[in-house]
Amino acid sequence: MVYITRKETFNAAHRLFKAEWTDEENLKVFGKCSNPNWHGHNYTLFVTVCGEVNPCNGFLVNLKTLSKIINKTVIEKMDHKNINLEVDFMKGKMASTENLAISIFEQLEEPITAIGANLYCVKLFETENNYVEYFGKAK
Amino acid sequence: MVYITRKETFNAAHRLFKAEWTDEENLKVFGKCSNPNWHGHNYTLFVTVCGEVNPCNGFLVNLKTLSKIINKTVIEKMDHKNINLEVDFMKGKMASTENLAISIFEQLEEPITAIGANLYCVKLFETENNYVEYFGKAK
Amino acid sequence: MVYITRKETFNAAHRLFKAEWTDEENLKVFGKCSNPNWHGHNYTLFVTVCGEVNPCNGFLVNLKTLSKIINKTVIEKMDHKNINLEVDFMKGKMASTENLAISIFEQLEEPITAIGANLYCVKLFETENNYVEYFGKAK
Amino acid sequence: MVYITRKETFNAAHRLFKAEWTDEENLKVFGKCSNPNWHGHNYTLFVTVCGEVNPCNGFLVNLKTLSKIINKTVIEKMDHKNINLEVDFMKGKMASTENLAISIFEQLEEPITAIGANLYCVKLFETENNYVEYFGKAK
Amino acid sequence: MVYITRKETFNAAHRLFKAEWTDEENLKVFGKCSNPNWHGHNYTLFVTVCGEVNPCNGFLVNLKTLSKIINKTVIEKMDHKNINLEVDFMKGKMASTENLAISIFEQLEEPITAIGANLYCVKLFETENNYVEYFGKAK
Amino acid sequence: MVYITRKETFNAAHRLFKAEWTDEENLKVFGKCSNPNWHGHNYTLFVTVCGEVNPCNGFLVNLKTLSKIINKTVIEKMDHKNINLEVDFMKGKMASTENLAISIFEQLEEPITAIGANLYCVKLFETENNYVEYFGKAK
Repeated sequence: MVYITRKETFNAAHRLFKAEWTDEENLKVFGKCSNPNWHGHNYTLFVTVCGEVNPCNGFLVNLKTLSKIINKTVIEKMDHKNINLEVDFMKGKMASTENLAISIFEQLEEPITAIGANLYCVKLFETENNYVEYFGKAK
Repeated sequence: MVYITRKETFNAAHRLFKAEWTDEENLKVFGKCSNPNWHGHNYTLFVTVCGEVNPCNGFLVNLKTLSKIINKTVIEKMDHKNINLEVDFMKGKMASTENLAISIFEQLEEPITAIGANLYCVKLFETENNYVEYFGKAK
Repeated sequence: MVYITRKETFNAAHRLFKAEWTDEENLKVFGKCSNPNWHGHNYTLFVTVCGEVNPCNGFLVNLKTLSKIINKTVIEKMDHKNINLEVDFMKGKMASTENLAISIFEQLEEPITAIGANLYCVKLFETENNYVEYFGKAK
Repeated sequence: MVYITRKETFNAAHRLFKAEWTDEENLKVFGKCSNPNWHGHNYTLFVTVCGEVNPCNGFLVNLKTLSKIINKTVIEKMDHKNINLEVDFMKGKMASTENLAISIFEQLEEPITAIGANLYCVKLFETENNYVEYFGKAK
Repeated sequence: MVYITRKETFNAAHRLFKAEWTDEENLKVFGKCSNPNWHGHNYTLFVTVCGEVNPCNGFLVNLKTLSKIINKTVIEKMDHKNINLEVDFMKGKMASTENLAISIFEQLEEPITAIGANLYCVKLFETENNYVEYFGKAK
Repeated sequence: MVYITRKETFNAAHRLFKAEWTDEENLKVFGKCSNPNWHGHNYTLFVTVCGEVNPCNGFLVNLKTLSKIINKTVIEKMDHKNINLEVDFMKGKMASTENLAISIFEQLEEPITAIGANLYCVKLFETENNYVEYFGKAK
């Protein structure tokens, strides 16, 4: 079993808030992350897949194929977007790094399985000082 | 003459667009950076001051003082903010990295001169792939 | 289960040596790390906690709370300190990166459990070329 | 149980291709990585060993000893070399990052066991955008 | 006057040697960089242009246009190539980082002038431990 | 004219204080950097030399020669040392990053001139958040 990881990046706006709360309540829980006028980040995404090496070409998975899947499924939907307003798979969810990592994992699972690999981990940096890892429901 | 540089960071939302243009015109010139729903970045700011070393304490400038000036004058006004809507010194200006670097330089010039140092350069990274440097009107 | 990681840094002096050995014996085993006049490092600390995401706020743990715990329990005790002479939880221990990672884990375990999260891993870089990971007694 | 990791680097040329295929077939599968005139990379290698901390010296393993083993067994054979033509342990294998990580692990396993440590993981970056991890046959 | 910098990368093989020297003579002067079987690097290129900010769009230069010029003029010719054998503008030159930086500058000067900007500096990293800067014939 | 830069690192202990001041006075001016028990850093040093490219070998200067000079003149004297107590060229000087950069420049100037190159700049990082540049007395 080998693990291969591809790094991609996207830049997006977001806000942490609950619609049913007042701005004051949101400010108390989420601090400046609740700014109603939005703020944003350069997100860095690491997608790890695992499996056996194909003896024919020495690859676990063709990295160009993996990169295309990540770009089509995640990056094109999120890059230079407002996560709360424009990302279909985040509708109705808090735009926390935790939820982003879980939702990105769920988006990637099917297309990566379809090319014969196993999605092992999604690791998402919001800033250089904090990141979230999600390994799927089993772990 | 010695040059000392302090790094600070802020996360903000912005949009490149001209109010007098249609969304289509803005899209043509600014691409996805014109998204009306905003996007954002982790900005990294390097502020360089120059001068002589004080023989008494070995400092060109006390870095804590420099950091406080940068935080009060720039970071607190920009961090977790919408640059177009909320940053007073960017009002009426295109929120490009070029204009941001120039405006941050102008904000810092007076308070840094007031502590007896010379502001030499503001270097601003929008992403790890592009940055702007501004050295003031003289250069 | 989700894993979230917070990065913090501290700068400290230390020395590797055994009091019951001569300087020559210490030099033989620990090399230049045994310098009786001390040397130091910029340590980089990554603290990973795991658990379920709170559906109410989308957080596994509030990162500000986590950062405060790390700062109060570890950073304030170690930053700009001499690890051998001044850090209470390192008294009587060799100041190796291995022991530092284990001791930092032990310091963090209780206060992190107290906020309802599980301390999963402490990862400590001594330089950019070497780091230690400790996952607790169970692993 | 503690895990300690050492980083080393090497610069090498390689090519992805199957000798029994035409250049056109190789181009189709491996893209520009199949260039018959070679290309190259700055590889970054992270070697992780695990075990108990020696209470006498606070070390899991002496990092200088570990670094010497990695340099003698891997770096000296690969640095400034052509992986396809000159690296004995890659003869007859596709020079993919996956196969490199596996083969480097196999090279390091015996000498690291000989110093009383356990080789846990080999992590190899080909570029800053992709890396492979291998944990041995058991995982 | 403002300075804006764009980062691009390419991976290539090369060799330092003089055809009129023996392998032994080349080895003596160039060390392992003269390996007749080639070696390679992940090169990182920073291209800095300077000029006035266009008041209409807030740009010194459109970064997408700059990136396209760098890619068409430099990256496509060098990425996954053998610098000695395949890069037209390096024919007959020693493939040192110094000569690469100068030659890349010369390649970029005309197309960058053609879009109304001034090429200020080419900065080229061969590894993370060494880089060359070239500012043109005037400096 | 071309500029080539070599990166080296060293780890050292230091303290900012004036012997003629009390600990309280030192604490007031230098804060935690005045800790009488020392603290330390991983310093990162960038040495830039400039000159013409030698048409015979394509080098401004042989980087191995430059690295040897930096190591013999600076790194061996500072690595794993106490800067205040053990570094001959810092005797009687405040161990600030400013003074370190100036003193390292002065140490390197003669041996670099002796190999026919010009020392252009010493850039010294104390942490990833601050660095000093010194270009010699002329600038």
